[in-house]
Amino acid sequence: MNDSFSEIDDIFHSKSLAIYGVSRKGGLGNILLQGFIDQEFPKMFIVNPRITESNVKIMGIPVFSDLKSIGEPVDLVICSTHPKFVRDIIVECGENGVKAVIIFSAGFGEKGEEGKNAEKELVKIARKYKMRLIGPNCMGLYCPSSKLSFFPALPTESGSLGLVSQSGSIANLMGFLAMLKGIYFSKAISFGNGIDLSFNDFLEYLGDDPTTKIIACYMEGVNDGRRFIDLVKKIEKPIIVWKAGATPAGSKAAHSHTGSICGNNKLWNNVFDQYGVIRVYNLEEMISMIQAFINPIPVRNCRVAILSGPGGPAVSSADACEMNNLKLAELTNETKLKLQELVPEFGSSISNPIDLSLQVQFDPMLEKNAYEIVGMDPNVDMMLIWLSMLNPRYKDLIKLQEKVYKPIALVSGIDVNVSRDSFGDNMKRFIQIRAKKVPKIIQNMNQKGISIHPNEHLAAKALYNIYQFYNKSKFDNI
Amino acid sequence: MNDSFSEIDDIFHSKSLAIYGVSRKGGLGNILLQGFIDQEFPKMFIVNPRITESNVKIMGIPVFSDLKSIGEPVDLVICSTHPKFVRDIIVECGENGVKAVIIFSAGFGEKGEEGKNAEKELVKIARKYKMRLIGPNCMGLYCPSSKLSFFPALPTESGSLGLVSQSGSIANLMGFLAMLKGIYFSKAISFGNGIDLSFNDFLEYLGDDPTTKIIACYMEGVNDGRRFIDLVKKIEKPIIVWKAGATPAGSKAAHSHTGSICGNNKLWNNVFDQYGVIRVYNLEEMISMIQAFINPIPVRNCRVAILSGPGGPAVSSADACEMNNLKLAELTNETKLKLQELVPEFGSSISNPIDLSLQVQFDPMLEKNAYEIVGMDPNVDMMLIWLSMLNPRYKDLIKLQEKVYKPIALVSGIDVNVSRDSFGDNMKRFIQIRAKKVPKIIQNMNQKGISIHPNEHLAAKALYNIYQFYNKSKFDNI
Repeated sequence: MNDSFSEIDDIFHSKSLAIYGVSRKGGLGNILLQGFIDQEFPKMFIVNPRITESNVKIMGIPVFSDLKSIGEPVDLVICSTHPKFVRDIIVECGENGVKAVIIFSAGFGEKGEEGKNAEKELVKIARKYKMRLIGPNCMGLYCPSSKLSFFPALPTESGSLGLVSQSGSIANLMGFLAMLKGIYFSKAISFGNGIDLSFNDFLEYLGDDPTTKIIACYMEGVNDGRRFIDLVKKIEKPIIVWKAGATPAGSKAAHSHTGSICGNNKLWNNVFDQYGVIRVYNLEEMISMIQAFINPIPVRNCRVAILSGPGGPAVSSADACEMNNLKLAELTNETKLKLQELVPEFGSSISNPIDLSLQVQFDPMLEKNAYEIVGMDPNVDMMLIWLSMLNPRYKDLIKLQEKVYKPIALVSGIDVNVSRDSFGDNMKRFIQIRAKKVPKIIQNMNQKGISIHPNEHLAAKALYNIYQFYNKSKFDNI
Repeated sequence: MNDSFSEIDDIFHSKSLAIYGVSRKGGLGNILLQGFIDQEFPKMFIVNPRITESNVKIMGIPVFSDLKSIGEPVDLVICSTHPKFVRDIIVECGENGVKAVIIFSAGFGEKGEEGKNAEKELVKIARKYKMRLIGPNCMGLYCPSSKLSFFPALPTESGSLGLVSQSGSIANLMGFLAMLKGIYFSKAISFGNGIDLSFNDFLEYLGDDPTTKIIACYMEGVNDGRRFIDLVKKIEKPIIVWKAGATPAGSKAAHSHTGSICGNNKLWNNVFDQYGVIRVYNLEEMISMIQAFINPIPVRNCRVAILSGPGGPAVSSADACEMNNLKLAELTNETKLKLQELVPEFGSSISNPIDLSLQVQFDPMLEKNAYEIVGMDPNVDMMLIWLSMLNPRYKDLIKLQEKVYKPIALVSGIDVNVSRDSFGDNMKRFIQIRAKKVPKIIQNMNQKGISIHPNEHLAAKALYNIYQFYNKSKFDNI
């Protein structure tokens, strides 16, 4: 742990905050405030110089015309005003002993030279007062354990996922998408233009943070590539990176989004490969890979057994494994003999990929027993299981992991979070699990090294990434 | 239309059917029967030689000990018995004037040489009686307009999608997945080992069938590659092919699944490319591409405008477009000026990809007006719109198509079919559309050339495929 760690950690444990940019008529500042209200942050104030009357409240929070009038220390300030007011607010914060300012306001470096100069000025002021800045053009910090938030309705539950995102909206959306899979956050950071505390600082912080077990990033570029490489080399937690700007068109877009220089995509891939960083290309992949790394099971080889009721997906899953550099396990004769006794004689296949036949939809024990037989095969390092839809057999799988303890990636043909209400009445009887129970179920599976994916290609990618992760030299001691 | 067309069409319009393999204790035959009961097929009989009493009913359907005892003509027989009984049943069918037999039973060619010989024998018998066979190792036919079915709970609504699948379970699952997107079938065919009527026959049939506007296929291999090529060359309807067995591992799996020879993957890709066949690799892609081709809008160029509220996904969407060989549209100055007036000064970008800023989540008119300005730009051929979740603005988009008439691919960060119940209570207020309304909404969008996808890569792929499809020489007259 270094000085920078405790400095950032202090911000995450701010005891009081004030917010600029909340008005009677509503606006983005009010929405940010609602986020803190939803988390029940204990001590909040609104600062609005246009409201000079005393004892005014907006959304139940007391309003003051300036910081000083609050009359007690404010640790953290959130600034959501027009950019032209930001400089003076930063000075006011410095003079009043504020420790950190989150600058939500946009209209700085991403707008060109003038904005860049304004940013330099802000940093200069902050340095003078030994105050730290997050942003501008960012959402800020979400940390359910200390009740910080950057958007309404984010979960109040804490988890082990740390997120650092150059895009505020992705940070928001991740909060909600993760919730659908029962994944919760230790900390999430949207740092925007990152003029003071920036990507590398937060990455290092999450690497050291004991409440963070897995790190997800959305990035377009980093200021200091050397430091980034040193960090991913050092950090032993799984790091999943959505690096946008992978193409010339994307790079150009990134530049006007956050002013980022994306750099050479091939070089990025080399760095990621070398240090076991998991690269993803969209939100759907991100959620898939996070699940696989919530509690991944160490593995040295990548011989996969594929189990499927539907035969077509079994073939496609074999394709997906090969496309993702996995090997199909050669089952032992013992396994084959046991499967032969178990599965129906016709419409099935007992060589890998194992096709349990249509029968599997009507005979739950077939599925359960097949999982066990295949899972215990010493030639099998990991399993890819293709289901038409999530069914109550997930309980058998969770239990099986006490014996088997191998990475398992499920595919659900019908998305796990789909509601029964989306189907006709006839179909409802097939959906055995209610939508509202799904997040908790996935959470329990993830905890046992079982992830669930929308297609076989993401399932195979998840398994390959687990294999790769544990076969990097930095994990030689596992 | 050829002889083969009317022969297959007659099977689809069978007036009466008998099913073998239904028993008092239940089993797969009973499940097949339930499918017909759910569709309310008008005239059905069960044949079970072990039940010799008269006036027996199972699941409300009268049981006879043999075909002849039914005492009236039976057009179609479904055979779901142990494979050892199939030969004699085929003979019985032939002798009693049955027009076609669907052999659900597995345990033939896919099991090796002996099974292959048994198949030859079946074909010989069928030829003798001028009877057609579908299967073995298949689900058979689903055709809601004539009340044929191969699984319980399939929709009774008819649509324009024709499916021909070598995998029965995929045919089933497609029925349910398509329903979630408001997509319904003209006909779906699972032909299994295809010893008589096979892939090419059904592909040709769907090509000629006036109720089928779009053809989806799951295939592992075809018997007659030359004929397949002639067909895809001739058929002007969109053909979407999930060709499994793309890798050596997948090919091997396909061989034990349906006994298919998958062939050289590169050659397949050349054929697909040459004739505008859309290739997909899993069910999720399949559903994405079908949506895009329900009612595709002809287009000669592929300059895409990207619109997004969240800035990060805008960057990633630019990547996705470039990865899928699309061009980013260069907006006219007029468009840029109009956007400049419309979008917030900060946290936004008016050059393509257009970032409407976080504001879009609170100002519906911003979204609506931006769609119109960008859609009307003559430099824009198609639009990719990234949304955090499906919102009521879809109505504006549908209306806009009367003026704009360009392919539009939406991305919804939160899956469209996800239930509000999956979220915490706080979040529910953000999901503005109830799950049960979603299929109808998507149907309405698809009808106007608007598709909706789980990520930007599938959205871009859909747009590229539309562009490719209309730029093949066979459509030179559009």
